[in-house]
Amino acid sequence: MTADRASGAAPAPATPKPRALSGIQPTGRFHWGNYFGAIRQYIELQPPADGASPGAAAEAYYFIADLHALTTVRDPARLRDLVRAAAIDLVALGLDPERAVLFVQSDVPEVCELTWLLMTVAPMGLLERCHAFKDKKARGLPADAGLFTYPVLMSADILAYDATVVPVGEDQVQHIEVCRDLAGAFNHLYGPVFTLPVPRLVEGGAKVPGTDGLKMSKSYDNTLDVFEDPAAQKKKIMRITTDSRPMEAPKDPETDHLFALYALVAPEEDRLRMAETYRRGGFGYGEVKKALVTAAAEHFAEARARRAALEADSERIEAILAAGATRARARAWDVLDRARRACGIDRSPHRPPPGRTS
Amino acid sequence: MTADRASGAAPAPATPKPRALSGIQPTGRFHWGNYFGAIRQYIELQPPADGASPGAAAEAYYFIADLHALTTVRDPARLRDLVRAAAIDLVALGLDPERAVLFVQSDVPEVCELTWLLMTVAPMGLLERCHAFKDKKARGLPADAGLFTYPVLMSADILAYDATVVPVGEDQVQHIEVCRDLAGAFNHLYGPVFTLPVPRLVEGGAKVPGTDGLKMSKSYDNTLDVFEDPAAQKKKIMRITTDSRPMEAPKDPETDHLFALYALVAPEEDRLRMAETYRRGGFGYGEVKKALVTAAAEHFAEARARRAALEADSERIEAILAAGATRARARAWDVLDRARRACGIDRSPHRPPPGRTS
Repeated sequence: MTADRASGAAPAPATPKPRALSGIQPTGRFHWGNYFGAIRQYIELQPPADGASPGAAAEAYYFIADLHALTTVRDPARLRDLVRAAAIDLVALGLDPERAVLFVQSDVPEVCELTWLLMTVAPMGLLERCHAFKDKKARGLPADAGLFTYPVLMSADILAYDATVVPVGEDQVQHIEVCRDLAGAFNHLYGPVFTLPVPRLVEGGAKVPGTDGLKMSKSYDNTLDVFEDPAAQKKKIMRITTDSRPMEAPKDPETDHLFALYALVAPEEDRLRMAETYRRGGFGYGEVKKALVTAAAEHFAEARARRAALEADSERIEAILAAGATRARARAWDVLDRARRACGIDRSPHRPPPGRTS
Repeated sequence: MTADRASGAAPAPATPKPRALSGIQPTGRFHWGNYFGAIRQYIELQPPADGASPGAAAEAYYFIADLHALTTVRDPARLRDLVRAAAIDLVALGLDPERAVLFVQSDVPEVCELTWLLMTVAPMGLLERCHAFKDKKARGLPADAGLFTYPVLMSADILAYDATVVPVGEDQVQHIEVCRDLAGAFNHLYGPVFTLPVPRLVEGGAKVPGTDGLKMSKSYDNTLDVFEDPAAQKKKIMRITTDSRPMEAPKDPETDHLFALYALVAPEEDRLRMAETYRRGGFGYGEVKKALVTAAAEHFAEARARRAALEADSERIEAILAAGATRARARAWDVLDRARRACGIDRSPHRPPPGRTS
C-alpha cells in the first residue's frame, strides 16, 4: 500500500500515467467555494490538448453523481434540472469532452452491480466509522441505508473505471481509504480484480469565504454562485459585510474576506494594485465591491458565453453525455466482467457488453 | 394493507390473477427438508398446463439467488456448480420452463439498480431490526453490509417483477414486510411505482425430521438429499437412529421420525399399511428402513431420470436460463423504467431495454 501511495504521488517510469476520476454531486448550483476550491482543480487534471503536461492525467473521468444525490434531492424535476445544469456548467467552465469523459452516474448501470459485489465484502464496522453517517447519527438524526452505504457506491464509482488517482478534499480521504479496503478485500478473496486508487488532496484549492466572512457554504446562505444572474449577484456583493474602521486607516488585505473574494476573480495586476490600496488606506469598501462586481463579470464572461451557447443548443449537452456514457460503460463493463468472473457469477453469455451484440 | 392481504389469499373477481415469485439460494444441494418443506409447494404454484386451477398463479417467476449466495459462498467454482445444479434440480423436480420463468438473479442487472433506488428510502432502523442481521450481531459475529442490506436486495427481487404473491416460510415474513415498507416509502415520495406484494405462508409444507430425529438441516448434518447417490443415501437411511423398544411392542407411527420420512415418499396405500404395522407391532426397524430406501428411490425415480437427461444435454439448461433471463429482464426493465422516471434519473435514451435496439 505504501508503494501504491508513492506511485500515485509521483509515478515511477514503469507506472502507467494516472487515470483520474472525479464525481460531482448535483445537489445545487455551483458556488465560488465549489469552483475555486475543487472543480477548477479537477478540470485542470484533464489530459492536455497539446500532449504531455506534468500533473495532468492520461485519462480523466468526470461524472455527475445523481445516484448519490437521490439520498437528498427528492424532487425528480429538480434533480433532472440540476444534473443537466451541472453538465452544462462543467463544460462551460472548461471541461473538454474531447479530452475527458463526462457522463452521468446513472447512465452506467454496471456501477450498481459492482456496488452489490462490494457490499458482500464490506464489514459493517468499516461503514459505521465513516463520518457522513457517524456525524448524522451523532446529531440524533434518522439516517437511511443510502447514506450508510454511500461509501460502497462511491467505491464502485472509482473501481469501475480502474481509476488510479482520485482528487479529493480532506473530508473525502476516508472514503478513498474505504474504497481501497473494499478493493483489497475483494482482491484478497478472488484474485487481482481491482486497481487500488490513491487519494490526491486537491492542491491550490482556495479557502473561499462567504459574503459574511464565514466559510462559503450553501448551509450558511452566504454564497456567490458561478453562474448567478448578474443583477442578483451585484446586490449580494454590495451587501457583503465589512468592518467599520475609518476609510483612512491602512488595512491588511490578507485578513479581509472582501479582498479574498476579489483576489479570486481579479487579474494578477489588479489584485496587486488593490492590495496596495488596502495597505495604504484611504479607500471605501464600496469601491472594492464595485471592483469585485466588475472583476467577477469579466472572470466568468467567457464561461458564461459558452454556457449560453450550450443552453441554446439543447441537444448538444445530451450528445456529450451520451458519448461519455458509452465510453464510460465500455470500461465499466470490462471491470465488472472481471469481477463477475472472479466471484463466479459469469454464466451469462446473453449479457452483451454495451454497444456490442444485443 | 388489509385489502391487499385478503386479495392475496383469495383474489376478488376484479383483481388480476396472482403473479408469484420465489427465490432459492444456491448455497448447497437440496435436501428433503427443502423439497417437502417449500420447493414442492413453490413448484405447485406455477400456472397449470391445462388452464385455470385454484391456488395456482397466473404467472410465476423462480430465480436462483446467486447474488444473495455471494455473502456466504466465496468459492467461484463452487458457486457456478451450485447455481447450475439448482436450476437442473428445479426442472427435474417439475418446474416447467414453458409455464414459469426460471432464471438466475445476476442475469437481471436491473435488480441491482433497483436495489440502490430502494436503499435511498430504507431507514437504518428498519434494517437493524431484521432478524438475520440481528441474530448474527447478537451472537457477537462480525457481519458484512451484504447481510445487513440483504432485505433491500430481496425487496428489489420482488418488486422488479411486480410480484403480488410471495410464498415464504415464517422466517421470511418479516422480509416481505420490509419490502412492502420500502415500496410504500418510494410510492409515497414519488407516486405509484411499485406493486405491494403479500406474503403467503407456504401451506402443506411438511416438517421434515433429519436422520437423528431433529429438524432436517445442513447444520445438523442429518440430511437426506433429493438427488443423493443411491448407495450413499442407503447407508444414511440404514443408520437412522431408532429407539430400543422390543419388536413386538405396538408403536405410534405419528411420533416416529423414521415413519415420518417414509410417509413423505411412500404411496398413500403403502403409508397406510405401514402405519398399521406400527400400531400392531411385531416388526423390525430394519424392514422399515429397507422400505424407505425403496420408496425414496421410486418417489424420485422420474425426477432422477429427468435430471440425468438434463445433465447429459449440457446446453439445454443454459438455453432455459437464457430464455428465462430474457423474459425476466423485459419485465424488470419496465419496472425499473417506471422507478427511474419517477425519481428523475431517466435522462438516458441510450439505455435501451434489453433485446430491443442497442
